[in-house]
Amino acid sequence: MRIGELSRRTGVSVPTIKFYVREGLLPAGRLTSPNQASYEEDHVRRLRLIRALLDVGGLSLAAIREVIAAIDDPEQPVHKMLGEAAARLVPRYERAADGRAADGGAAEGSAAVARARVEGIIAARGWRAYQGNPAGEALVAALQALEEVGHGRFAEVLDVYAEAAERVARADLEYVARNVAREDLVESVVVGTVLGDAVFESLRRLAHVDASDRLFGREGASGEASGPVSPDGD
Amino acid sequence: MRIGELSRRTGVSVPTIKFYVREGLLPAGRLTSPNQASYEEDHVRRLRLIRALLDVGGLSLAAIREVIAAIDDPEQPVHKMLGEAAARLVPRYERAADGRAADGGAAEGSAAVARARVEGIIAARGWRAYQGNPAGEALVAALQALEEVGHGRFAEVLDVYAEAAERVARADLEYVARNVAREDLVESVVVGTVLGDAVFESLRRLAHVDASDRLFGREGASGEASGPVSPDGD
Repeated sequence: MRIGELSRRTGVSVPTIKFYVREGLLPAGRLTSPNQASYEEDHVRRLRLIRALLDVGGLSLAAIREVIAAIDDPEQPVHKMLGEAAARLVPRYERAADGRAADGGAAEGSAAVARARVEGIIAARGWRAYQGNPAGEALVAALQALEEVGHGRFAEVLDVYAEAAERVARADLEYVARNVAREDLVESVVVGTVLGDAVFESLRRLAHVDASDRLFGREGASGEASGPVSPDGD
Repeated sequence: MRIGELSRRTGVSVPTIKFYVREGLLPAGRLTSPNQASYEEDHVRRLRLIRALLDVGGLSLAAIREVIAAIDDPEQPVHKMLGEAAARLVPRYERAADGRAADGGAAEGSAAVARARVEGIIAARGWRAYQGNPAGEALVAALQALEEVGHGRFAEVLDVYAEAAERVARADLEYVARNVAREDLVESVVVGTVLGDAVFESLRRLAHVDASDRLFGREGASGEASGPVSPDGD
């Protein structure tokens, strides 16, 4: 197809498509004449992937470039490819690390406490996690931030989070193993990681409304089996 | 305390503190002389909240201002306050909505499918969710994006996500009911929502490494079809 049709099918403007090609995010089309290139279904899919990472995932172009490089490298074994792609998908860590950097020496103690907690969770669940995993650092930063705003006791519910995360992560990988061809694995894991975050965040907020209604709403305390509902509400 | 000590205790520079006061994010100090103001523990806490929302949550100053307005309004009933604060915490939706807007008419059909799916989940779990909840719209956008990048079948695992989200959300609210004084409720829910996202995202990524190793690692592929594969027990 021509670039105009590619643009129409993906909702991405022609100048933006050309920009992605120049930036190495999208392979160039096949030249059919000195001034005209032809594009394939692969281009449609790649463009949609770029837009999903950009619009929904909020990744920078630089991060997207690295993710795509990992996807396009045919040399790596599956588990390693997945790890390399996943390593780029921890945007919150960088922001959190900036915050910590401003905080000076006082943060060091709470970092050690948070780090011990993270190692404790990984050990308790028996997770195989490689050392220096950026997700571990992101978790340390988030726990530290909770401690600093006076919610150190939030650690009480970490087990619930860890068990829920494990269930979701296994469902993710089982979905991938069931539905995705080997050459599309990394792409799927990247998309699933980023969009899965958005899905879970939204579901958690919907469930918050429900849980808040049960705990604090006027109609609450109506005797649901699960959960300690305190009737003192409001 | 003086502004210099406030700055030292929070790691926020004096000009930035003054900027937050001008912007209405932080109450002004109590004037002790025409040129000097005194700050209290409340200022320390509020500054840490602002930095957490900014650095870890990635919220804009405008969104932080709205969240703080909801926290500071003493008139509202608890469940409503929580809802108003929570409504500002769906940053992914706006990005996703931008992406959709570029996509033209083709998106409308997939939006209807996604919306029906979201309503189905809410009904199946028996969640009390108010109409027009922005989290519902965010979920619609994320499911649509999955559909558009060829992962419509991801809906297969939505039940696992919804159940995990429900457990986490109830643990969140129970933590809050157990540990937090009434006047701090909204603040806690806001912080817990934003930082809880970061905690869950990190845990999910750590669990991905484990699940990927079990499914695709050299030592993996040990024959289990779907269940929790755990040779070392968990």
